[in-house]
Amino acid sequence: MDTMDRLKKDLVETGKFGRTPPRRIERYDQLDPEKGVTRPAGTEENRKVRDYAVERMREAGLTVKIDKVGNIFGRKEGSKTNTGTVMSGSHLDSVINGGMFDGALGVFGAIEAIRRMNDEGFENERPLEVAVFTAEEGSAFSPTILASSVLVGKMGVDEAWNRKNAMGQTLGEVLENIGYKGSFERSLDDVEYFVEMHVEQGPILDKEGLSVGIVENISGMMWIMLTILGSENHAGTTPMRIRKDALVAAADIVSFVNKRANDLVEKLSAAIVGTVGRLNVFPNVGNIVPGKVEMVIDIRDVVQENMASLKNETLKAAKDIENKYGVDIRTQLTSLHLPVTLSNEVINMIDSSARQVGIVPKRMNSGAGHDCLNMVKRTKAGMIFVPSVNGISHAPLEWTNWEDIEKGAKVLTQTLKNLSRL
Amino acid sequence: MDTMDRLKKDLVETGKFGRTPPRRIERYDQLDPEKGVTRPAGTEENRKVRDYAVERMREAGLTVKIDKVGNIFGRKEGSKTNTGTVMSGSHLDSVINGGMFDGALGVFGAIEAIRRMNDEGFENERPLEVAVFTAEEGSAFSPTILASSVLVGKMGVDEAWNRKNAMGQTLGEVLENIGYKGSFERSLDDVEYFVEMHVEQGPILDKEGLSVGIVENISGMMWIMLTILGSENHAGTTPMRIRKDALVAAADIVSFVNKRANDLVEKLSAAIVGTVGRLNVFPNVGNIVPGKVEMVIDIRDVVQENMASLKNETLKAAKDIENKYGVDIRTQLTSLHLPVTLSNEVINMIDSSARQVGIVPKRMNSGAGHDCLNMVKRTKAGMIFVPSVNGISHAPLEWTNWEDIEKGAKVLTQTLKNLSRL
Repeated sequence: MDTMDRLKKDLVETGKFGRTPPRRIERYDQLDPEKGVTRPAGTEENRKVRDYAVERMREAGLTVKIDKVGNIFGRKEGSKTNTGTVMSGSHLDSVINGGMFDGALGVFGAIEAIRRMNDEGFENERPLEVAVFTAEEGSAFSPTILASSVLVGKMGVDEAWNRKNAMGQTLGEVLENIGYKGSFERSLDDVEYFVEMHVEQGPILDKEGLSVGIVENISGMMWIMLTILGSENHAGTTPMRIRKDALVAAADIVSFVNKRANDLVEKLSAAIVGTVGRLNVFPNVGNIVPGKVEMVIDIRDVVQENMASLKNETLKAAKDIENKYGVDIRTQLTSLHLPVTLSNEVINMIDSSARQVGIVPKRMNSGAGHDCLNMVKRTKAGMIFVPSVNGISHAPLEWTNWEDIEKGAKVLTQTLKNLSRL
Repeated sequence: MDTMDRLKKDLVETGKFGRTPPRRIERYDQLDPEKGVTRPAGTEENRKVRDYAVERMREAGLTVKIDKVGNIFGRKEGSKTNTGTVMSGSHLDSVINGGMFDGALGVFGAIEAIRRMNDEGFENERPLEVAVFTAEEGSAFSPTILASSVLVGKMGVDEAWNRKNAMGQTLGEVLENIGYKGSFERSLDDVEYFVEMHVEQGPILDKEGLSVGIVENISGMMWIMLTILGSENHAGTTPMRIRKDALVAAADIVSFVNKRANDLVEKLSAAIVGTVGRLNVFPNVGNIVPGKVEMVIDIRDVVQENMASLKNETLKAAKDIENKYGVDIRTQLTSLHLPVTLSNEVINMIDSSARQVGIVPKRMNSGAGHDCLNMVKRTKAGMIFVPSVNGISHAPLEWTNWEDIEKGAKVLTQTLKNLSRL
């Protein structure tokens, strides 16, 4: 079997674990294909895909260890000692009704790279290690990128174990249930490089017809929660002039964020985005002037100052809107992740490795967070992107063409080879 | 006991049936007072207030009959025969967490008018009748003004009986349960006049410091439901320029309706209102660009052409917004009630009756619907309004000052007296 056949088999087989049954999805006006998966961290489906990966690791000659928060490490020693480890991997959990490549591609891509080296009799000087991180998605346990946060020391083991899912089970409990609460404590002191291959989850590579991207920056993210208080009144009996309509004020804010983010794309940064994804109206009854609106503004960019700029302009606009409509607007910063810049050394190594295998990669940014966001704090870390068809991810319609997966796998393999001899 | 003491006692006593327990209400930033009521049609609380009213009717010498859909009629014959009946009344059901005057005032105000005539030895020539209409509010059974619709022949008895509440009970069932499924069939052929006293449920009388209003027109109402379909996408990875954000499009529509309705208040009609009271975002997740928004536009005016004008301009704006954002907007007219003009004869009679008792009334319109909206189809009908403090209604904070209730009751009594001898 060649690289592509083996990797494809792994992805197709594991895509059956937690397969989401096809159903009509109105937003795309079509039927889900048979490719969605639902396997949040700690579920039986999550166990199956973990078991499958561990078997493949052992077959490839890797020594497998499980740490206290369920992270899996499959290690191959190198021919030299005292050189830093090269680690590669991603996650095997999914969102509810997610796609079969999100995470799994980075894990099985790394395993395939090892198998390829084995086939070729390639001798790695540095140790190589495939990593599977627990609970990258926030679909079962919050926050996202949970167990890699423990790995890099951002969160304690006990704190992670005590996190609860919607059924009230703790992470410690479910890991024990599925047999993945290990005893290994993985210090990252010996790890020098980390490379994660992942689907882009956005439309850029697909739109430009490119197969491989190299991530330079991962956007920071800020959530501002706004509560707009107006006056709830009868829609039939309350004259226009004396209303304090919370939704009318909210509409101005939605429009402002969208318009200003579009402006800033030209002025400041192609990566900047501003979104109101969640908005709730109270009491949300057709014949009542809305008395309250709660909404979340999501702001992202690869430059922290740009995020602050959009935030400050939005808060200033909110002040004007407050005066214009006589409403009361309360704001709260509920989440803040700073942008990170990935390792230049790894970026350059991915770039030259890609060219070595005949592929011209695109330098780009990631608007989504990944385990790499944590790993960059302790290692020289980089990411390889492959396209998502139509930019769709976190949905059963997520897809990446096999040719692109093959190219991504080749670039990852070559990068890991080169790093292992650096 | 004088008029005010008796009427106040009736309203205070019945205000205890279905009393809503005080709770913190954020939108007014204060505690509910002990005056809210919850007694939707067919509940045990609704039975209690009906029983109380029937007792008072009998005490006042009225002959009580219950019709098939639970409407209650308490009749006092007149000294002449073959003259059309003068009917007055309102409803005793409430919305959930409603106020104690909404409906009840019109019923007990009419009963008090009869008592006052009895006290004075006033001899009515035409028959007088107090009416209590079932299920005026849509809070248990839809649509609103349900049983008066049966009375005027807009809806069949079977159709009304088969309407279901949220618990799946039919109106026929709950009327039987509370002992108010009668056998009487009330033709309106003999009814010449109908007068309903009601709280304004809007702010106009309160703002102007007036005690009594006479309704000239009841606004028509139109509901347009819009479904906006965009593209659901990851808020982090989808560049601003390629988004089809359903909420951004919806915000433009909310703004348009509000701005245009405000413009038309100057240009066309002080009564015109346009409201988006209900708006739902899908999937309504902070980090996902909204793929769908459903919203309801409520348009009202006393002139049908003005309603049509705001509707047409809104649909035209929606077309532009559709093109601007690349979304798909589907519209549906889900409800349409035409405006009605009340009887000039009754309006003038209320006016002169008010002046007779030393009160200068204000001619005004009603933005809310009432049973009178049905009754005007078969009788010469009119309405008397008393102020709602701060325009609040359909809320436990609904209030009307006792002095205003007294003035309204005086005007109603004098009007019924005059009509009964016309």
